[in-house]
Amino acid sequence: MNPTRPSTAALRIVIVAPDSLLADGTDTRAVTEAERSRSLRIGLLENGYNIVAVLPADVFLPDRLAQIAPDMIIVDAESQARDTLEHVVLATRDARRPIVLFTEDEDTSHVGAAIAAGVTAYVVAGMAPDRVKPVLEVALARFEHEEGLRRELADARTELSERKVIDRAKGLLIKAHGLTEDAAYARLRKTAMDKGLRLADVAQRLIDVSDLLA
Amino acid sequence: MNPTRPSTAALRIVIVAPDSLLADGTDTRAVTEAERSRSLRIGLLENGYNIVAVLPADVFLPDRLAQIAPDMIIVDAESQARDTLEHVVLATRDARRPIVLFTEDEDTSHVGAAIAAGVTAYVVAGMAPDRVKPVLEVALARFEHEEGLRRELADARTELSERKVIDRAKGLLIKAHGLTEDAAYARLRKTAMDKGLRLADVAQRLIDVSDLLA
Repeated sequence: MNPTRPSTAALRIVIVAPDSLLADGTDTRAVTEAERSRSLRIGLLENGYNIVAVLPADVFLPDRLAQIAPDMIIVDAESQARDTLEHVVLATRDARRPIVLFTEDEDTSHVGAAIAAGVTAYVVAGMAPDRVKPVLEVALARFEHEEGLRRELADARTELSERKVIDRAKGLLIKAHGLTEDAAYARLRKTAMDKGLRLADVAQRLIDVSDLLA
Repeated sequence: MNPTRPSTAALRIVIVAPDSLLADGTDTRAVTEAERSRSLRIGLLENGYNIVAVLPADVFLPDRLAQIAPDMIIVDAESQARDTLEHVVLATRDARRPIVLFTEDEDTSHVGAAIAAGVTAYVVAGMAPDRVKPVLEVALARFEHEEGLRRELADARTELSERKVIDRAKGLLIKAHGLTEDAAYARLRKTAMDKGLRLADVAQRLIDVSDLLA
């Protein structure tokens, strides 16, 4: 866990909710939803969270999230959860953020898909205001843990692909100049240092133009 | 998500709880805990879960868990949560399983450590029986998702370390016999096929005895 992260109480939160929560009083279901949604926001405010925006899930969402750069996104989307979630997942694909989904829908058949798509916490059924804080703390810890795993995976894959590229480049030099493996490696390294490039980049450039040298 | 996994309702669950839950009626706190613990078990049973064992967190736990091989472990350990959790995490280090921790303790300062140690879900504050099912479904989906990430990471690391071993072995052959890189690789491959071994294993054996051949 990153010890320098802000305490959750100082978190800047964006709530994504469908427009239906703004409906008039004629639709009973919409009224119930609006009530629940209000109670969630009261819980957040009472626990000292900073709700920096409440946004609809529309085509402007990615740009707005990029501008605001919230610490956490809460999806409050009873009846249109799947559509809303799709927008949020798309909007955070390149800049991952903790996403907490609150839903009253007890049908959990889509949980697996939601989690695979990037949802950090999937909170089914309503929540008393005093339970909001531990839920968000757990979600944040889980997000950080998973990001750690993802970084390790990305590092391992990068190292592997760079090694492959360097091997191919060494092979080209060995074949072209009758060098030993060590000499080929030393030559790549020297070029990298002379040009101020990374070893893998020099190797990739050599591969890119190898047809010209044949 | 693995489509062949059993529905959560058929899950074989082991509950790990400290002995204090078996205390007599003189300690008010113990009585409250026992009450809460009973209500959790009722919730599990009412939702059709199969509680195959209730075990204390002692030195026999790893063996018992290995024998029973439950689909999920529920840690129900109010006052001794940290000690109990330590035992459970140790017991599942080699055979990872979903671990759900139920606690009334609102102090979430240890959440990060618990999640890093292998806890899949950290459920703070009591739970109505009808909410047990979605919580466990979410925990299971999250466990599977994280196992997927871990497998990818393990695969990438294995491929990387095997590649390093094979490279070193190739280098030994090139130096010892004045082979080209391709010829060295071909010779390793032929030996692997002749002996019915994996390429990386042949490479490792060559490295292991290379001092003898010098």
